Amino acid sequence: MVLEKIKKPNDIKNIPPDEYEDLAQEIREFLINKISVTGGHLGSNLGAVELTMALHLVAELPGDKIVWDVGHQSYTHKLLTGRREGFETLRKYGGMSGFPKRKESLCDSFDTGHSSTSISAGLGLVKARDLNGENNAVFAVIGDGALTGGMAYEALNNAARLDTNYVIILNDNNMSIAENVGGMSKYLRKIRTAEAYKDFKIGLENRLNKLRGGEQLVDTLKRYKSGVKQLVVPGMFFEDMGITYLGPVDGHDIKAMVRMFREARKLPKCVLVHVLTKKGKGYMPAERHPARFHGAEPFDIETGLPKRNRKKANYTDIFSTVMTKLGARNEKVVAITAAMPDGTGLKRFSNMYPDRFFDVGIAEGHAVTFAAGLAAGGLRPIVAVYSSFLQRAYDQILHDVCIQNLPVVFAIDRAGLVGADGETHQGIFDISYLSSIPNMTIMAPKNKWELSDMLKFAVRFNSPIAIRYPRGEAYDGLEDFRAPVVFGRSEVIYEENDIALFALGSMVREAEEVRSDLKRRGYPCSLVNARFAKPVDTEVLDRLCGTHSLIVTLEENVESGGYGEKIRDYVFERRLSCDVLIIALPDDYVEHGNVDILKEEVGIDKDTIIKRIITSYISWGNKHRKEGVFSSGME
Amino acid sequence: MVLEKIKKPNDIKNIPPDEYEDLAQEIREFLINKISVTGGHLGSNLGAVELTMALHLVAELPGDKIVWDVGHQSYTHKLLTGRREGFETLRKYGGMSGFPKRKESLCDSFDTGHSSTSISAGLGLVKARDLNGENNAVFAVIGDGALTGGMAYEALNNAARLDTNYVIILNDNNMSIAENVGGMSKYLRKIRTAEAYKDFKIGLENRLNKLRGGEQLVDTLKRYKSGVKQLVVPGMFFEDMGITYLGPVDGHDIKAMVRMFREARKLPKCVLVHVLTKKGKGYMPAERHPARFHGAEPFDIETGLPKRNRKKANYTDIFSTVMTKLGARNEKVVAITAAMPDGTGLKRFSNMYPDRFFDVGIAEGHAVTFAAGLAAGGLRPIVAVYSSFLQRAYDQILHDVCIQNLPVVFAIDRAGLVGADGETHQGIFDISYLSSIPNMTIMAPKNKWELSDMLKFAVRFNSPIAIRYPRGEAYDGLEDFRAPVVFGRSEVIYEENDIALFALGSMVREAEEVRSDLKRRGYPCSLVNARFAKPVDTEVLDRLCGTHSLIVTLEENVESGGYGEKIRDYVFERRLSCDVLIIALPDDYVEHGNVDILKEEVGIDKDTIIKRIITSYISWGNKHRKEGVFSSGME
Repeated sequence: MVLEKIKKPNDIKNIPPDEYEDLAQEIREFLINKISVTGGHLGSNLGAVELTMALHLVAELPGDKIVWDVGHQSYTHKLLTGRREGFETLRKYGGMSGFPKRKESLCDSFDTGHSSTSISAGLGLVKARDLNGENNAVFAVIGDGALTGGMAYEALNNAARLDTNYVIILNDNNMSIAENVGGMSKYLRKIRTAEAYKDFKIGLENRLNKLRGGEQLVDTLKRYKSGVKQLVVPGMFFEDMGITYLGPVDGHDIKAMVRMFREARKLPKCVLVHVLTKKGKGYMPAERHPARFHGAEPFDIETGLPKRNRKKANYTDIFSTVMTKLGARNEKVVAITAAMPDGTGLKRFSNMYPDRFFDVGIAEGHAVTFAAGLAAGGLRPIVAVYSSFLQRAYDQILHDVCIQNLPVVFAIDRAGLVGADGETHQGIFDISYLSSIPNMTIMAPKNKWELSDMLKFAVRFNSPIAIRYPRGEAYDGLEDFRAPVVFGRSEVIYEENDIALFALGSMVREAEEVRSDLKRRGYPCSLVNARFAKPVDTEVLDRLCGTHSLIVTLEENVESGGYGEKIRDYVFERRLSCDVLIIALPDDYVEHGNVDILKEEVGIDKDTIIKRIITSYISWGNKHRKEGVFSSGME
Repeated sequence: MVLEKIKKPNDIKNIPPDEYEDLAQEIREFLINKISVTGGHLGSNLGAVELTMALHLVAELPGDKIVWDVGHQSYTHKLLTGRREGFETLRKYGGMSGFPKRKESLCDSFDTGHSSTSISAGLGLVKARDLNGENNAVFAVIGDGALTGGMAYEALNNAARLDTNYVIILNDNNMSIAENVGGMSKYLRKIRTAEAYKDFKIGLENRLNKLRGGEQLVDTLKRYKSGVKQLVVPGMFFEDMGITYLGPVDGHDIKAMVRMFREARKLPKCVLVHVLTKKGKGYMPAERHPARFHGAEPFDIETGLPKRNRKKANYTDIFSTVMTKLGARNEKVVAITAAMPDGTGLKRFSNMYPDRFFDVGIAEGHAVTFAAGLAAGGLRPIVAVYSSFLQRAYDQILHDVCIQNLPVVFAIDRAGLVGADGETHQGIFDISYLSSIPNMTIMAPKNKWELSDMLKFAVRFNSPIAIRYPRGEAYDGLEDFRAPVVFGRSEVIYEENDIALFALGSMVREAEEVRSDLKRRGYPCSLVNARFAKPVDTEVLDRLCGTHSLIVTLEENVESGGYGEKIRDYVFERRLSCDVLIIALPDDYVEHGNVDILKEEVGIDKDTIIKRIITSYISWGNKHRKEGVFSSGME
């Protein structure tokens, strides 16, 4: 095994070149074996094996810096920096992260997770290097998908001014998670195809012969331009910005890449090396089904099929189904995704209503303002997006949608703890960042039927509105509770007295279990399905505070700025005679791991909740209970 | 007067072409006269007079849609749509906005304020038009400065796919507010210069002669490319993306523009018309000092000098001075602005330390992640930015700075009510959106000395930290109170008992006046300068809640997710024996107008505050006062 010779950073430099191919093969087998068990990002990693090897042959680690855009393609980098053992615990709680982490290795120079950040971060490392009088190389590795994100362009625009070296490696596999979109992608595709070269030579000569007659410049300009357009001078787009373009180079030819990276490293400016790779390379199922093997569940290596046979629908499935119905019912309904037609569940809608479906690339900011434009034009746009990615569009929500009070629906998937992807992907801030925005309404469904009801409610609603729902299996309990969705109203599921659980979205299921348990222990509880995180249902609060001494709020969001604080504020402000216990996440990031473990870790698991409720209830004391320490409605 | 013939939309079409020049002249005089009295955006409007006239000659309003990027250049548009009277109340409370507003006119098709949104919004209007089976034109007018914002590129990338008409007008004045930066700007400059055309012809012929020898393609490629690079085929950058480029055209030649806009309107795709304009055109002081006349104070027309002679320094001045000192003291200190070296006060720093100053263009997202890279490289970056623009970088703060706990300093100017620019520019959300982010610290200074002290504290602090300070004159009272800045600690200025004012930043001044007044009325108050909005000083709360029955928090931020809620939560959670009254902004946007009027409007003026405190104090009731309804520290 060649791979066994790699024990620490730079060991690859001791491998004889004629063993590179074997090493690549072994790395692929290793990754397929490990990821088939643990799950993880497979396609992007298989595509970047040789690219990473070439980079490690050129770079001196940890002095030289590599910034991996998004970061999920860094598995080979982890292997080559001596983290082979880590793959046993990949993406497990306490184990190795699926993304670069500075705290994990000195060779990880910048944490990533979201898209299109690498060129900016790398440019910062370049400027720091120069000002510190150092001489290390900085490489940013960015996919063509990530290049649809505007921040990458902002960074290129700045990197163009450099007069010292900075190497950007464009890992072009002609894919985002799904197929790549837009003008930039089309442009890169033209470069990819051999035809571009042929066109380049033949087209150029023919056309320029004609030009030499000496006609009026202005007249020929247009004709000429349409000629030039056909032939692609590789990389002129980047050269126009002031960035030196090298390539394209075969991303599975290690020697060619090493040569080109070395050449790129020498130039005293920003150089973009265009590397052509194949997503899933070397494993047929991944080559054929790139979306499925983007972030893979544990799978059978032979067949490529997922091992776990999912029986129950998840919330994404429910959303997917309801969207097709809404599409049929209302032709004003349009749907937008930022490069995730599969992940968000919009694929079916896109097949049925291709004209009313928009995949805008990895461009959440544009997605939201584009939706605002659609709404201003009289349509009913639904932006389907993961909670943590919507963070990218905070200002667009506030400034473009909500000031104008436009009816845009935000279908926020992966709200709450997401598990294996870790801190960059946890959807635990959306209630906080959305609820301080005026004109915004926020809902969360307790079960699968309620997601459907809320979506139907949302497309008829005349203001900005968000529905947040978690990753994973859709809850199909409490099926008998399906009161109509009414603006700002919660749903009282069980009414007892003294303790009332106000649970939001995913936490209703948890609260239901807590309630059963507490009842057995002699503490009957009311259970309120909050439904709306903004505005909170003050009517039910006014009423239940008269008969309850402890309100417990439950949410899968950080406490700061969340649902519970709103409830507590109201109770305090109105001087209602209740104690309020907030069950929410602490003011901290949450690492990767199994969601059940993470829930325990942050204290929103059943046992911790029960303990906290009982403690609170007792500590509040019999003295205050039911007497009302404030006279209700005193103000 | 030709201008008098314009009373409603489309009236310009009845003006004979030989009067266009007079009309343009009259509009300029009108704008200069009005803005010299009211203040407002002058340079950008003077530059866009003919462009707007041409657009109104081509467009049928309100059927056709015009989206003005940023929107401060829409004054001529307002004039030509019959809003001449509005200029009497321009940017005044209740008067006409300085930006496009849908509620102001049917001819304003999309509200703008922040940069780089127009292409996205316009694309939404295009898609809505097509799906609605309509046929109106959609024009997005975007400056070359706004083109440095990544969202514009995200939108271009999508617009490139259109097979119906969409006209983007690039209003290229070779400026952001300050000089424009980056590769894109350099590229546009090349197109601007006549040399580009010459190069185009001569360079092309010479170089391509050589090419025809039949050398190996791969070898000549590089040589050829560096040749092509010299000659600019106008607009190839856009054509490469798939956008049809027309131009450049003289932005002060109405007939030429009309011709080109009409031609552009005919094509069944996305067309970019490159219009060359001069910022401040026709008014010498504005042509010479574009930054000063970007957003102008009332000025003397003759001299171009501001009428009000500002005597006292504002917070931006203080920041500016301190930055030069910090720069001298610590060579690791670097500064970043997103296209606002003047507005943020970094100009002096940039002159003294050009290598350590970075103007990244209108690209807040990149600015923040770039700063994260600088910090990861061992430097101490200070991002100087207006509160409302920092909204654009919410995810970059959360994901790139705070997860890695990198020491980036955010110097947040214009935090609080900004006045005349209105709802898009009010800095009233930053405490909310920043404080739910883990690892973030938020400070606000009471006066000019404290801004200085806080900046010095911040550059020594090893985590992300923000300092928010308001627009306008720096408070120079309370000069005797200058306790050292200590992490998480407030400063007790006056200690009495029973009522304690906890004021944050700008509200300390207000609170000081409230305190004097209340004292006269027989209510002595303690005054605490909060200093930290996150973390809040719980020690002082624990202590003062023992001797006070009413805590009043004061902040210039929305209540939701703000400082007051944190205080109230703590008091509630710890069951301290205090009432908490929150003085903050309501859950709503705040329009344009004089800041003093706005303060009254939102209820944070002195009189309202006093009234609310007295009411609260009385309503809390003698019954509860000092007894402690909760036994302190009971938990």
